[in-house]
Order: sequence, then C-alpha cells, then structure tokens
Amino acid sequence: MNKYRNIGLKLTPQRLAILGYLEGNKEHPSAEEIFRAVSEKYPTMSFATVYNTLAALSKKGNILELTIDPDKRRYDPNTENHNHLICISCKKIVDICLDYKVVVPESLGYDFEITGNHIEFYGICPACKQQKAV
Amino acid sequence: MNKYRNIGLKLTPQRLAILGYLEGNKEHPSAEEIFRAVSEKYPTMSFATVYNTLAALSKKGNILELTIDPDKRRYDPNTENHNHLICISCKKIVDICLDYKVVVPESLGYDFEITGNHIEFYGICPACKQQKAV
Repeated sequence: MNKYRNIGLKLTPQRLAILGYLEGNKEHPSAEEIFRAVSEKYPTMSFATVYNTLAALSKKGNILELTIDPDKRRYDPNTENHNHLICISCKKIVDICLDYKVVVPESLGYDFEITGNHIEFYGICPACKQQKAV
Repeated sequence: MNKYRNIGLKLTPQRLAILGYLEGNKEHPSAEEIFRAVSEKYPTMSFATVYNTLAALSKKGNILELTIDPDKRRYDPNTENHNHLICISCKKIVDICLDYKVVVPESLGYDFEITGNHIEFYGICPACKQQKAV
C-alpha cells in the first residue's frame, strides 16, 4: 500500500479500507461497488469518502479511471500500460496485458506527437455466451 | 438528416437544429458545446433538450458517445467503425479511420467472443507542441 501514501488526504481507517480493497483488485470495480464492499466493514462510511478518495488517487495517477463501461466509471489499481476487454452483456472487464504495435501513420497528416494508446476490446464472455445459447 | 428520423422524440425545430449541427461535424463536440452553438439560433433552447436529444440519438445508435476525454462526454455523428486520437493538452479529437488488426490471443484463456474494438491514441497536437516550445 506504499504507493498510495501521498494522496493528499488524511489516511483515516475508512480511506485505508478503500485502498486495501483496491490493492491487487482485478475486478475493475465501480465507485458504488467499492462503497458497498467497504461499508460492510465500516457502516459509517459515506459515499462521498469513497468518491473523494477515488478522485484523489486518480489525480495522483495511483489508479486508472476507466471509461470502457458506458454506464459508469470503473477503477483499476493496475496503472501499468495495458488494454481492456469488456463483456458488452454483463460488463465484466478483464485485462489484456499485451503491447500492441499500433501507430498513427504520418500520411494521415495530423502531426501529433503520440504519447500512448489504449485498446478497448468488446465481446461476450463465456458465461453470457452460454446464457444466450440456452 | 434521414438517418436521424426515428429517434423516438418529436422533431421540433430545436431538435432539428441539434441534428443539423451534428450532421457531418468532425469536432467531436460535448453537450455543452452543442448547447452553446444551437442556442445562438434558438435562445429558448434548454440544456435538457440537448441532453435528451443526444441520449435518444445515442440509444438508437445514430451517434457515438465518446469517453476518450476524461473531463466530459463527446459526441460523434460518424458511427462507422473508426478510432480516435486525442490531444492530452487541448482535448482536440481527430478520427483515425484505419482498420487495425488487433486480436485477443486465445492463449490468454478468456474465451470471449470478440465483437469489436476501439483504439484510443493519446498525443500532443501541432498547436500545443508549438506552444510548449515557445
């Protein structure tokens, strides 16, 4: 949890619980899901605390705010460069930790200095495929 | 404007002005920008009308709702499969109409049925590059 130290907010037990829930979490939870999970242990937890903590972590670059799910922001504690695949049915998101060689050809004439990329893959997960088949 | 006909909302002059503003627009405007532009001609236009019209168009698949700009939703009347490049400084978005061959290898074991992808490129546009150099 060292990397979360300097987020510019006092690290109360509630905030530490949020950080603990996020650490190593591969589910790409939404703010609502994080709130539900941590408020089980801390019933006095407010949604505002979750929201402010996520905003501070995100601003400091300690977590990624994903916009692949059109319904709500999702959060990823893995800030290494990687891509995502979402099930368009159940909205499950998985990591695609592969470095794809995609470039913007100079011939397009945009002359941007490219600094990075992120690929969003859309699909249907095995569970939803099976449900559709029934 | 034929493709916008059946959006499930009465096509009032205000709504037609929104559709007219979007048609062929390559600027990827936000709801606020659309509101500002169309309310010049229709001062009685409400932000709610813009918002509802965009939501209806988006739901019907007549426009794309882009989430590449972390600050606000942006809208694209070009619903053909294409990718985007955003300037991380001024938030200008341009279209990258190229079909990249990116696949999720079976070896990752996710077993999703892949239905599509969208690449977000990040960079610095020529104008912002120049400003930084001054």
